[in-house]
Amino acid sequence: MAATDKTAVDSELPPKSEAAPPDAAAKCPFNYSLVDVALRVLVFAATLTSVVVMVTSKQTELVSVPGFPGFRLTLQAKFNQSPALVYFVAALSVTGLYSIITTLASVSVVLKPVYSKSFLLVFASLDVVFVGIVASATGAAGAVGYIGLKGNKHAGWTKICDIYDKFCRHTASSLALSLFAAILLVLLSMMSTFTLYKKIRH
Amino acid sequence: MAATDKTAVDSELPPKSEAAPPDAAAKCPFNYSLVDVALRVLVFAATLTSVVVMVTSKQTELVSVPGFPGFRLTLQAKFNQSPALVYFVAALSVTGLYSIITTLASVSVVLKPVYSKSFLLVFASLDVVFVGIVASATGAAGAVGYIGLKGNKHAGWTKICDIYDKFCRHTASSLALSLFAAILLVLLSMMSTFTLYKKIRH
Repeated sequence: MAATDKTAVDSELPPKSEAAPPDAAAKCPFNYSLVDVALRVLVFAATLTSVVVMVTSKQTELVSVPGFPGFRLTLQAKFNQSPALVYFVAALSVTGLYSIITTLASVSVVLKPVYSKSFLLVFASLDVVFVGIVASATGAAGAVGYIGLKGNKHAGWTKICDIYDKFCRHTASSLALSLFAAILLVLLSMMSTFTLYKKIRH
Repeated sequence: MAATDKTAVDSELPPKSEAAPPDAAAKCPFNYSLVDVALRVLVFAATLTSVVVMVTSKQTELVSVPGFPGFRLTLQAKFNQSPALVYFVAALSVTGLYSIITTLASVSVVLKPVYSKSFLLVFASLDVVFVGIVASATGAAGAVGYIGLKGNKHAGWTKICDIYDKFCRHTASSLALSLFAAILLVLLSMMSTFTLYKKIRH
Protein backbone atom coordinates (compact mmCIF):
# COMPACT_ATOMS: atom_id res chain seq x y z
CA MET A 1 0.00 0.00 0.00
CA ALA A 2 2.73 2.43 0.99
CA ALA A 3 4.62 1.75 -2.25
CA THR A 4 1.54 2.47 -4.37
CA ASP A 5 0.95 5.75 -2.57
CA LYS A 6 4.54 6.78 -3.14
CA THR A 7 4.28 6.10 -6.90
CA ALA A 8 1.10 8.16 -7.09
CA VAL A 9 2.82 11.08 -5.38
CA ASP A 10 5.89 10.73 -7.59
CA SER A 11 3.88 10.88 -10.81
CA GLU A 12 2.58 14.32 -9.82
CA LEU A 13 6.03 15.71 -9.15
CA PRO A 14 8.34 17.04 -11.91
CA PRO A 15 10.94 14.51 -13.25
CA LYS A 16 13.54 14.20 -10.49
CA SER A 17 16.78 13.68 -12.36
CA GLU A 18 18.82 14.64 -9.27
CA ALA A 19 17.03 12.34 -6.81
CA ALA A 20 17.38 9.08 -8.79
CA PRO A 21 21.14 8.46 -8.50
CA PRO A 22 21.23 8.68 -4.65
CA ASP A 23 18.44 6.02 -4.50
CA ALA A 24 20.43 3.66 -6.71
CA ALA A 25 23.62 4.52 -4.87
CA ALA A 26 22.00 3.87 -1.51
CA LYS A 27 20.84 0.43 -2.72
CA CYS A 28 24.20 -0.71 -4.13
CA PRO A 29 26.66 -0.12 -1.27
CA PHE A 30 24.49 -1.86 1.31
CA ASN A 31 25.06 -5.34 -0.11
CA TYR A 32 28.63 -4.47 -0.91
CA SER A 33 29.33 -3.06 2.54
CA LEU A 34 28.19 -6.15 4.39
CA VAL A 35 30.44 -8.42 2.30
CA ASP A 36 33.19 -5.83 2.70
CA VAL A 37 32.88 -5.92 6.50
CA ALA A 38 32.87 -9.74 6.49
CA LEU A 39 36.00 -9.94 4.28
CA ARG A 40 37.83 -7.33 6.37
CA VAL A 41 37.07 -9.30 9.54
CA LEU A 42 38.48 -12.37 7.75
CA VAL A 43 41.64 -10.41 6.80
CA PHE A 44 42.05 -9.43 10.46
CA ALA A 45 41.56 -13.03 11.61
CA ALA A 46 44.01 -14.35 9.01
CA THR A 47 46.75 -11.79 9.77
CA LEU A 48 46.36 -12.13 13.55
CA THR A 49 46.53 -15.94 13.38
CA SER A 50 49.47 -15.75 10.98
CA VAL A 51 51.44 -13.47 13.34
CA VAL A 52 50.59 -15.59 16.40
CA VAL A 53 51.60 -18.82 14.63
CA MET A 54 54.88 -17.26 13.46
CA VAL A 55 55.75 -15.74 16.86
CA THR A 56 55.07 -19.04 18.66
CA SER A 57 57.29 -21.04 16.29
CA LYS A 58 60.27 -21.10 18.71
CA GLN A 59 61.90 -24.52 18.89
CA THR A 60 64.87 -25.69 20.96
CA GLU A 61 66.73 -28.81 19.85
CA LEU A 62 69.72 -30.87 21.00
CA VAL A 63 71.86 -31.08 17.87
CA SER A 64 74.74 -33.53 17.52
CA VAL A 65 77.93 -32.00 16.10
CA PRO A 66 79.34 -33.85 13.03
CA GLY A 67 82.79 -35.31 13.78
CA PHE A 68 82.26 -35.20 17.57
CA PRO A 69 80.12 -38.23 18.51
CA GLY A 70 78.38 -37.90 21.87
CA PHE A 71 78.85 -34.13 21.89
CA ARG A 72 75.58 -32.22 21.62
CA LEU A 73 74.65 -28.56 21.40
CA THR A 74 71.40 -26.91 22.46
CA LEU A 75 70.29 -24.77 19.52
CA GLN A 76 67.22 -22.65 19.09
CA ALA A 77 65.24 -21.58 16.01
CA LYS A 78 63.19 -18.38 16.35
CA PHE A 79 61.54 -16.15 13.77
CA ASN A 80 63.64 -13.14 14.80
CA GLN A 81 66.85 -14.86 13.66
CA SER A 82 65.86 -14.13 10.05
CA PRO A 83 65.33 -10.53 8.85
CA ALA A 84 62.81 -11.82 6.27
CA LEU A 85 60.64 -13.38 8.98
CA VAL A 86 60.91 -10.22 11.13
CA TYR A 87 59.70 -8.21 8.12
CA PHE A 88 56.92 -10.77 7.68
CA VAL A 89 55.70 -10.35 11.28
CA ALA A 90 55.94 -6.53 11.05
CA ALA A 91 54.08 -6.39 7.72
CA LEU A 92 51.31 -8.74 8.86
CA SER A 93 50.91 -6.85 12.16
CA VAL A 94 50.50 -3.53 10.32
CA THR A 95 48.00 -5.17 7.96
CA GLY A 96 46.06 -6.53 10.95
CA LEU A 97 45.90 -3.02 12.42
CA TYR A 98 44.81 -1.64 9.04
CA SER A 99 42.08 -4.28 8.79
CA ILE A 100 40.68 -3.25 12.21
CA ILE A 101 40.53 0.43 11.14
CA THR A 102 38.95 -0.36 7.76
CA THR A 103 36.45 -2.79 9.35
CA LEU A 104 35.26 0.03 11.62
CA ALA A 105 35.14 2.41 8.64
CA SER A 106 33.22 -0.18 6.63
CA VAL A 107 30.73 -0.67 9.51
CA SER A 108 30.23 3.10 9.58
CA VAL A 109 29.41 2.97 5.84
CA VAL A 110 26.80 0.26 6.51
CA LEU A 111 25.19 2.43 9.21
CA LYS A 112 25.47 5.73 7.29
CA PRO A 113 26.00 5.22 3.52
CA VAL A 114 26.39 8.95 2.73
CA TYR A 115 30.17 8.89 2.40
CA SER A 116 30.29 5.46 0.71
CA LYS A 117 31.85 6.78 -2.55
CA SER A 118 34.78 8.47 -0.78
CA PHE A 119 35.27 5.41 1.42
CA LEU A 120 35.27 3.15 -1.66
CA LEU A 121 38.00 5.28 -3.23
CA VAL A 122 40.11 5.24 -0.07
CA PHE A 123 39.54 1.49 0.44
CA ALA A 124 40.40 0.59 -3.17
CA SER A 125 43.58 2.71 -3.04
CA LEU A 126 44.86 1.61 0.37
CA ASP A 127 44.00 -2.05 -0.22
CA VAL A 128 46.37 -2.06 -3.22
CA VAL A 129 49.22 -0.78 -1.02
CA PHE A 130 48.52 -3.52 1.53
CA VAL A 131 48.30 -6.16 -1.22
CA GLY A 132 51.87 -5.14 -2.06
CA ILE A 133 53.00 -5.23 1.57
CA VAL A 134 51.44 -8.63 2.38
CA ALA A 135 52.53 -10.18 -0.96
CA SER A 136 56.14 -9.03 -0.53
CA ALA A 137 56.19 -10.33 3.07
CA THR A 138 54.77 -13.67 1.92
CA GLY A 139 57.35 -13.83 -0.88
CA ALA A 140 60.24 -13.03 1.47
CA ALA A 141 59.18 -15.52 4.15
CA GLY A 142 58.38 -18.11 1.48
CA ALA A 143 61.85 -17.82 -0.07
CA VAL A 144 63.57 -18.22 3.32
CA GLY A 145 61.20 -21.07 4.22
CA TYR A 146 62.00 -22.84 0.95
CA ILE A 147 65.75 -22.61 1.61
CA GLY A 148 65.09 -23.96 5.13
CA LEU A 149 63.08 -26.84 3.66
CA LYS A 150 65.21 -27.80 0.67
CA GLY A 151 68.51 -26.00 1.16
CA ASN A 152 70.58 -24.77 -1.79
CA LYS A 153 73.56 -26.91 -2.73
CA HIS A 154 74.95 -24.30 -5.15
CA ALA A 155 75.26 -21.70 -2.39
CA GLY A 156 76.17 -24.29 0.24
CA TRP A 157 73.08 -23.53 2.36
CA THR A 158 71.92 -26.64 4.20
CA LYS A 159 68.27 -27.36 4.97
CA ILE A 160 67.20 -26.92 8.58
CA CYS A 161 63.67 -28.30 8.52
CA ASP A 162 64.90 -31.84 9.25
CA ILE A 163 66.03 -30.56 12.66
CA TYR A 164 63.52 -27.78 13.40
CA ASP A 165 60.34 -29.54 12.26
CA LYS A 166 57.93 -27.62 14.52
CA PHE A 167 59.49 -24.29 13.48
CA CYS A 168 59.02 -25.14 9.81
CA ARG A 169 55.45 -26.35 10.29
CA HIS A 170 54.58 -23.08 12.02
CA THR A 171 56.27 -21.04 9.27
CA ALA A 172 54.38 -22.94 6.55
CA SER A 173 51.01 -22.46 8.29
CA SER A 174 51.76 -18.78 8.81
CA LEU A 175 52.66 -18.44 5.11
CA ALA A 176 49.42 -20.11 4.01
CA LEU A 177 47.43 -17.68 6.17
CA SER A 178 49.25 -14.64 4.82
CA LEU A 179 48.68 -15.83 1.24
CA PHE A 180 44.98 -16.12 2.11
CA ALA A 181 45.03 -12.56 3.52
CA ALA A 182 46.73 -11.27 0.35
CA ILE A 183 44.06 -12.92 -1.86
CA LEU A 184 41.30 -11.43 0.33
CA LEU A 185 42.86 -7.96 -0.02
CA VAL A 186 42.99 -8.37 -3.82
CA LEU A 187 39.27 -9.33 -3.78
CA LEU A 188 38.43 -6.38 -1.51
CA SER A 189 40.22 -3.92 -3.78
CA MET A 190 38.50 -5.38 -6.86
CA MET A 191 35.13 -5.22 -5.12
CA SER A 192 35.56 -1.54 -4.20
CA THR A 193 36.49 -0.71 -7.79
CA PHE A 194 33.58 -2.75 -9.15
CA THR A 195 31.13 -0.99 -6.82
CA LEU A 196 32.42 2.41 -8.03
CA TYR A 197 31.95 1.17 -11.61
CA LYS A 198 28.39 0.03 -10.87
CA LYS A 199 27.59 3.47 -9.41
CA ILE A 200 28.43 5.04 -12.79
CA ARG A 201 26.26 2.61 -14.73
CA HIS A 202 23.22 2.97 -12.41
CA MET B 1 35.31 37.12 -22.13
CA ALA B 2 34.81 33.59 -23.49
CA ALA B 3 33.62 32.34 -20.12
CA THR B 4 31.08 35.16 -19.83
CA ASP B 5 29.72 34.43 -23.33
CA LYS B 6 29.38 30.72 -22.53
CA THR B 7 27.40 31.46 -19.36
CA ALA B 8 25.08 33.75 -21.30
CA VAL B 9 24.43 31.04 -23.92
CA ASP B 10 23.94 28.39 -21.25
CA SER B 11 21.31 30.45 -19.45
CA GLU B 12 19.20 30.61 -22.63
CA LEU B 13 19.33 26.87 -23.24
CA PRO B 14 17.12 24.37 -21.36
CA PRO B 15 18.89 22.64 -18.42
CA LYS B 16 20.94 19.87 -20.06
CA SER B 17 21.19 17.33 -17.25
CA GLU B 18 21.76 14.44 -19.70
CA ALA B 19 24.38 16.14 -21.89
CA ALA B 20 26.70 17.27 -19.09
CA PRO B 21 28.04 13.88 -17.85
CA PRO B 22 29.26 12.63 -21.29
CA ASP B 23 31.11 15.94 -21.84
CA ALA B 24 32.82 15.67 -18.49
CA ALA B 25 33.49 11.97 -18.99
CA ALA B 26 35.00 12.59 -22.41
CA LYS B 27 37.27 15.25 -20.95
CA CYS B 28 38.48 13.25 -17.96
CA PRO B 29 39.81 10.00 -19.49
CA PHE B 30 41.89 11.79 -22.10
CA ASN B 31 44.33 13.27 -19.61
CA TYR B 32 44.21 10.07 -17.58
CA SER B 33 44.80 7.83 -20.57
CA LEU B 34 47.96 9.61 -21.71
CA VAL B 35 49.53 9.35 -18.24
CA ASP B 36 48.30 5.75 -18.11
CA VAL B 37 50.05 4.91 -21.40
CA ALA B 38 53.26 6.60 -20.23
CA LEU B 39 53.27 4.72 -16.90
CA ARG B 40 52.54 1.39 -18.60
CA VAL B 41 55.45 1.93 -21.00
CA LEU B 42 57.60 2.64 -17.94
CA VAL B 43 56.40 -0.60 -16.30
CA PHE B 44 57.36 -2.49 -19.45
CA ALA B 45 60.79 -0.84 -19.56
CA ALA B 46 61.38 -1.55 -15.86
CA THR B 47 60.34 -5.21 -16.03
CA LEU B 48 62.25 -5.88 -19.25
CA THR B 49 65.43 -4.29 -17.88
CA SER B 50 64.98 -6.14 -14.59
CA VAL B 51 64.67 -9.52 -16.36
CA VAL B 52 67.64 -8.80 -18.67
CA VAL B 53 69.83 -7.69 -15.74
CA MET B 54 68.88 -10.79 -13.74
CA VAL B 55 69.39 -13.23 -16.64
CA THR B 56 72.82 -11.75 -17.45
CA SER B 57 74.05 -12.03 -13.86
CA LYS B 58 76.01 -15.25 -14.50
CA GLN B 59 79.45 -15.18 -12.87
CA THR B 60 82.22 -17.81 -12.88
CA GLU B 61 84.84 -17.66 -10.14
CA LEU B 62 87.92 -19.62 -9.09
CA VAL B 63 87.26 -20.38 -5.43
CA SER B 64 89.97 -21.65 -3.08
CA VAL B 65 88.88 -24.57 -0.91
CA PRO B 66 89.45 -24.02 2.86
CA GLY B 67 91.97 -26.52 4.26
CA PHE B 68 93.47 -27.26 0.84
CA PRO B 69 95.88 -24.40 0.01
CA GLY B 70 96.67 -24.11 -3.69
CA PHE B 71 93.63 -26.18 -4.65
CA ARG B 72 90.99 -24.16 -6.53
CA LEU B 73 87.54 -24.94 -7.88
CA THR B 74 85.72 -23.23 -10.75
CA LEU B 75 82.26 -22.36 -9.46
CA GLN B 76 79.44 -20.57 -11.17
CA ALA B 77 76.57 -18.43 -9.85
CA LYS B 78 73.45 -18.21 -12.02
CA PHE B 79 69.93 -17.02 -11.31
CA ASN B 80 68.44 -20.44 -12.11
CA GLN B 81 70.26 -22.05 -9.18
CA SER B 82 67.74 -20.43 -6.84
CA PRO B 83 64.00 -21.21 -7.16
CA ALA B 84 63.20 -17.75 -5.77
CA LEU B 85 65.15 -16.04 -8.56
CA VAL B 86 63.54 -18.30 -11.18
CA TYR B 87 60.14 -17.26 -9.83
CA PHE B 88 61.34 -13.63 -9.95
CA VAL B 89 62.27 -13.88 -13.65
CA ALA B 90 59.02 -15.68 -14.50
CA ALA B 91 56.86 -13.17 -12.61
CA LEU B 92 58.61 -10.14 -14.11
CA SER B 93 58.40 -11.64 -17.61
CA VAL B 94 54.64 -12.20 -17.27
CA THR B 95 54.26 -8.64 -15.95
CA GLY B 96 56.23 -7.32 -18.92
CA LEU B 97 53.89 -9.16 -21.28
CA TYR B 98 50.88 -7.84 -19.37
CA SER B 99 52.24 -4.28 -19.60
CA ILE B 100 52.55 -4.59 -23.42
CA ILE B 101 48.92 -5.75 -23.72
CA THR B 102 47.60 -3.04 -21.36
CA THR B 103 49.69 -0.35 -23.09
CA LEU B 104 48.00 -1.27 -26.40
CA ALA B 105 44.60 -1.31 -24.68
CA SER B 106 45.35 2.05 -23.09
CA VAL B 107 46.39 3.51 -26.48
CA SER B 108 43.08 2.26 -27.92
CA VAL B 109 41.27 4.14 -25.12
CA VAL B 110 43.15 7.35 -26.05
CA LEU B 111 42.09 6.93 -29.70
CA LYS B 112 38.50 5.83 -28.96
CA PRO B 113 37.37 6.73 -25.41
CA VAL B 114 33.95 5.01 -25.71
CA TYR B 115 34.89 1.94 -23.67
CA SER B 116 37.05 3.84 -21.18
CA LYS B 117 34.89 2.93 -18.15
CA SER B 118 35.06 -0.81 -18.79
CA PHE B 119 38.80 -0.55 -19.48
CA LEU B 120 39.30 1.36 -16.22
CA LEU B 121 37.53 -1.41 -14.31
CA VAL B 122 39.61 -4.13 -15.98
CA PHE B 123 42.85 -2.15 -15.52
CA ALA B 124 42.19 -1.40 -11.85
CA SER B 125 41.34 -5.05 -11.15
CA LEU B 126 44.18 -6.70 -13.07
CA ASP B 127 46.78 -4.17 -11.87
CA VAL B 128 46.07 -5.26 -8.28
CA VAL B 129 46.77 -8.89 -9.20
CA PHE B 130 50.07 -7.87 -10.82
CA VAL B 131 50.98 -5.69 -7.83
CA GLY B 132 50.71 -8.91 -5.81
CA ILE B 133 52.77 -10.92 -8.30
CA VAL B 134 55.58 -8.35 -8.66
CA ALA B 135 55.65 -7.57 -4.91
CA SER B 136 55.89 -11.27 -3.96
CA ALA B 137 58.64 -11.83 -6.55
CA THR B 138 60.55 -8.80 -5.22
CA GLY B 139 60.11 -10.06 -1.66
CA ALA B 140 61.31 -13.58 -2.55
CA ALA B 141 64.35 -12.39 -4.52
CA GLY B 142 65.10 -9.76 -1.86
CA ALA B 143 65.10 -12.36 0.92
CA VAL B 144 67.46 -14.67 -1.01
CA GLY B 145 69.63 -11.69 -1.97
CA TYR B 146 69.86 -10.60 1.66
CA ILE B 147 71.01 -14.07 2.75
CA GLY B 148 73.56 -13.97 -0.08
CA LEU B 149 74.77 -10.57 1.09
CA LYS B 150 74.83 -11.03 4.86
CA GLY B 151 74.43 -14.78 5.41
CA ASN B 152 72.61 -16.17 8.44
CA LYS B 153 74.81 -17.47 11.24
CA HIS B 154 71.88 -19.05 13.11
CA ALA B 155 71.02 -21.29 10.15
CA GLY B 156 74.68 -21.72 9.15
CA TRP B 157 74.14 -20.08 5.74
CA THR B 158 77.29 -18.28 4.61
CA LYS B 159 77.24 -15.12 2.53
CA ILE B 160 78.23 -15.50 -1.11
CA CYS B 161 78.39 -11.88 -2.25
CA ASP B 162 82.06 -11.59 -1.23
CA ILE B 163 82.84 -14.14 -3.96
CA TYR B 164 80.14 -13.44 -6.56
CA ASP B 165 80.23 -9.64 -6.53
CA LYS B 166 78.96 -9.15 -10.09
CA PHE B 167 76.12 -11.62 -9.54
CA CYS B 168 75.01 -9.74 -6.41
CA ARG B 169 75.28 -6.32 -8.09
CA HIS B 170 73.06 -7.56 -10.93
CA THR B 171 70.55 -9.05 -8.46
CA ALA B 172 70.40 -5.81 -6.47
CA SER B 173 69.84 -3.69 -9.61
CA SER B 174 67.18 -6.09 -10.81
CA LEU B 175 65.46 -5.88 -7.43
CA ALA B 176 65.47 -2.08 -7.47
CA LEU B 177 63.85 -2.11 -10.91
CA SER B 178 61.16 -4.59 -9.87
CA LEU B 179 60.38 -2.49 -6.79
CA PHE B 180 60.00 0.50 -9.12
CA ALA B 181 57.64 -1.55 -11.36
CA ALA B 182 55.56 -2.58 -8.31
CA ILE B 183 55.22 1.06 -7.19
CA LEU B 184 54.20 2.08 -10.74
CA LEU B 185 51.54 -0.66 -10.78
CA VAL B 186 50.18 0.56 -7.42
CA LEU B 187 49.98 4.10 -8.86
CA LEU B 188 48.30 2.84 -12.04
CA SER B 189 45.66 0.93 -10.07
CA MET B 190 45.03 3.96 -7.82
CA MET B 191 44.76 6.21 -10.87
CA SER B 192 42.18 3.94 -12.56
CA THR B 193 40.09 3.88 -9.38
CA PHE B 194 40.38 7.65 -8.95
CA THR B 195 39.28 8.24 -12.56
CA LEU B 196 36.23 6.02 -11.97
CA TYR B 197 35.52 8.04 -8.82
CA LYS B 198 35.80 11.33 -10.71
CA LYS B 199 33.35 10.05 -13.33
CA ILE B 200 30.72 9.65 -10.61
CA ARG B 201 31.27 13.12 -9.17
CA HIS B 202 31.14 14.86 -12.58
